[in-house]
Amino acid sequence: MGFLSIMDISIAAAAALDAADPLAGMAARFTLPNGVIYLDGNSLGALPKGVDQRVADTLTSEWGVDLIRSWNSADWVGLPLSVAAKLERVIGAEPGSVVVADSTSVNLFKVLAVALTRVAAVNDGKRRRILTEHDNFPTDNYIAEGLIRLTGETHELVKVDTPQALLSALDEDVAVLMLTHVNYRNGFRHDLAALTAAAHAVGAVVIWDLAHSAGAMPVELAAAKVDFAVGCTYKYLNGGPGAPGYLYVAPHHLGHCQQPLSGWFAHATPFAFSPHYQPARDITQFLCGTPPVLSMVALDQALDLWADVDLSVLREKSLDLTDYFINLIDHKCAGHGLTLITPHKRQQRGSQVSFTHPYGGYAMMSALIAAGVIGDFRSPDILRFGFAPLYISFADVWHAVDKFAHILDARQWDTPKFHARKTVT
Amino acid sequence: MGFLSIMDISIAAAAALDAADPLAGMAARFTLPNGVIYLDGNSLGALPKGVDQRVADTLTSEWGVDLIRSWNSADWVGLPLSVAAKLERVIGAEPGSVVVADSTSVNLFKVLAVALTRVAAVNDGKRRRILTEHDNFPTDNYIAEGLIRLTGETHELVKVDTPQALLSALDEDVAVLMLTHVNYRNGFRHDLAALTAAAHAVGAVVIWDLAHSAGAMPVELAAAKVDFAVGCTYKYLNGGPGAPGYLYVAPHHLGHCQQPLSGWFAHATPFAFSPHYQPARDITQFLCGTPPVLSMVALDQALDLWADVDLSVLREKSLDLTDYFINLIDHKCAGHGLTLITPHKRQQRGSQVSFTHPYGGYAMMSALIAAGVIGDFRSPDILRFGFAPLYISFADVWHAVDKFAHILDARQWDTPKFHARKTVT
Repeated sequence: MGFLSIMDISIAAAAALDAADPLAGMAARFTLPNGVIYLDGNSLGALPKGVDQRVADTLTSEWGVDLIRSWNSADWVGLPLSVAAKLERVIGAEPGSVVVADSTSVNLFKVLAVALTRVAAVNDGKRRRILTEHDNFPTDNYIAEGLIRLTGETHELVKVDTPQALLSALDEDVAVLMLTHVNYRNGFRHDLAALTAAAHAVGAVVIWDLAHSAGAMPVELAAAKVDFAVGCTYKYLNGGPGAPGYLYVAPHHLGHCQQPLSGWFAHATPFAFSPHYQPARDITQFLCGTPPVLSMVALDQALDLWADVDLSVLREKSLDLTDYFINLIDHKCAGHGLTLITPHKRQQRGSQVSFTHPYGGYAMMSALIAAGVIGDFRSPDILRFGFAPLYISFADVWHAVDKFAHILDARQWDTPKFHARKTVT
Repeated sequence: MGFLSIMDISIAAAAALDAADPLAGMAARFTLPNGVIYLDGNSLGALPKGVDQRVADTLTSEWGVDLIRSWNSADWVGLPLSVAAKLERVIGAEPGSVVVADSTSVNLFKVLAVALTRVAAVNDGKRRRILTEHDNFPTDNYIAEGLIRLTGETHELVKVDTPQALLSALDEDVAVLMLTHVNYRNGFRHDLAALTAAAHAVGAVVIWDLAHSAGAMPVELAAAKVDFAVGCTYKYLNGGPGAPGYLYVAPHHLGHCQQPLSGWFAHATPFAFSPHYQPARDITQFLCGTPPVLSMVALDQALDLWADVDLSVLREKSLDLTDYFINLIDHKCAGHGLTLITPHKRQQRGSQVSFTHPYGGYAMMSALIAAGVIGDFRSPDILRFGFAPLYISFADVWHAVDKFAHILDARQWDTPKFHARKTVT
């Protein structure tokens, strides 16, 4: 994609950019509402076509007719691995290293517990620190706090503020470096490979949360020698609201670890109903209870999209969309007090763009949503815009900024209606 | 229901029993396959009518059109509590004491961790024992093993074999009595109130797993002063395959405990994204990650059935169905080596009937399923039949036993085809 086109603020340029987009055809594979420009796919991805029919079949035929037999005949029992297999390519994982189960939070609890015991066994049992960021996704830090409390406060969650501070804090007292690849507020992208290598250099293991990166860019877990990862499937992976989470365990850790949420689906032979827990030796050990089949089949169907996607092309489009958005805002929304908090450098950016506004952020976003452009607001002052490269066009970006500029120029947002807070998710 | 009718083995008696059944109309509210008698509702409940449409609406309208806004506009965010409210009446729980989330196994992990800290704080911190049965549902015991291992082996899982042995083992070294209300293999029903009182008498707290009782009989958690409970919604509650689990916490424990899977939905103000975990004071503290919306709405719709069900009438029908089945088997399947392992006493029985056979159980069940009567087999030698009182008729029972008698009399089961093992769930 040419730099000049992205810097051109005319509507004609948007059409030219879309005409040159190798992923332009993918949008037709989603059901998108009329009259809406959806810039919140980083929070809840759009509905892929085919998902409704697949779930309907599961309901009426597999559940309604075949009933209990579908655990075998429709291979419900195999879903945690078969769905995971579709994810492995998207996150650069080895075959058999990923499982789909539970929520991201529950999965993080499992891998963090295992990471602490693995590093204690292999490297040093005295390491006390779990290193992360203050601005890591809150639930990840809450889960770490919960695990630390439960296991007797023998570890400590150390939080710093910058990538440089992370590197400085990496020492031989760090057991685990636990980070989110792309920050949920400002869209800053960590250098996953470099931080993984730095952690390994001091004998720590790493856990990456891929919630805001997988499905928006290539992720190379195996190549970067990542130890553990977790992620969410309802954002850029379009699995549906509250779709199951996933987790990754590097093959060299499998068979040498035992996760604590040892439910029957994690057993070596779950349907033997044996009296003692015997962990599966493979990745199925990271399951726990019975998988939520309806949510799993929706995700399974949604992941079929990825068979046809070149992830490096996806990444280029994502960066072009976000550069284009930043440039249009610079030109058309200047002077209204918006401050860009997303990095200008392409390699440091995820697929979202965020601004702060000293007092108007919530109302501006409310007015924009009322005008059909859906982004979201994050306390205390952040306007967030996500660009799902599979279904967002350059024309969408152009029109979104055009509407935003009108709202700002006419100060349409500054009315009690738009200032009044509702629950925001 | 008259005792004489149940003891009558004529097909005319089945019709008379159905004509007198106050719940006979409920079967019409389920989609049941033609040509099948489904005696496995204790493993996966049947599909209630209306669930397919509700899920379709959630997919196409709430997700497909309203997208992220549905967290508020369709109150997805409220589902863990609104669905739980429908369950509270079914399990005799106080308003605000139940939440729907995660799987039964994950929920047991939460309440067991809390139970151990509560009993330590209130009664005695030195109690080391979690008391249960060898034949408790395996995943429950596995979860206890996992928690004990994670928390440094300071507790011990003590397993006994009989209700009397449970009473004998209850002493001041017992922290938690953890039991399943109705046994999954033989259908034995514990005296929930008496065992709860006995545990309290020695200063222990109780956790009941209601997987095989809720939806088949009244359960009176509040009246029995139960401390904690967990359960499954895909059996007698018909929530669909892998539907979310639930948990109960007695109101007097709420606000005095902190569960360890402290994800963002458990936070006092999840959407403030505050840096430190601050547990909600109410039952929402027992949530963890984002709820699986598709599975939640299916369950929500399925639970509407219970508004019209008198649970004491349900229990009477359940016991009549199982008595009737036992009597018919006695008369029509005698001499084939089946041994009843379900209690004859009505108050000791759940809603299932199980037999052992020294070598033919698997093949007999396979032949029966091939003939359109679906029960299941549990290792090593158990044939299990579940009777969901909402949709099983006395005529179903009569015809099921009639088919079984033919299979046994003609020894149709004793062929390689039916002996060959497949995965059984």
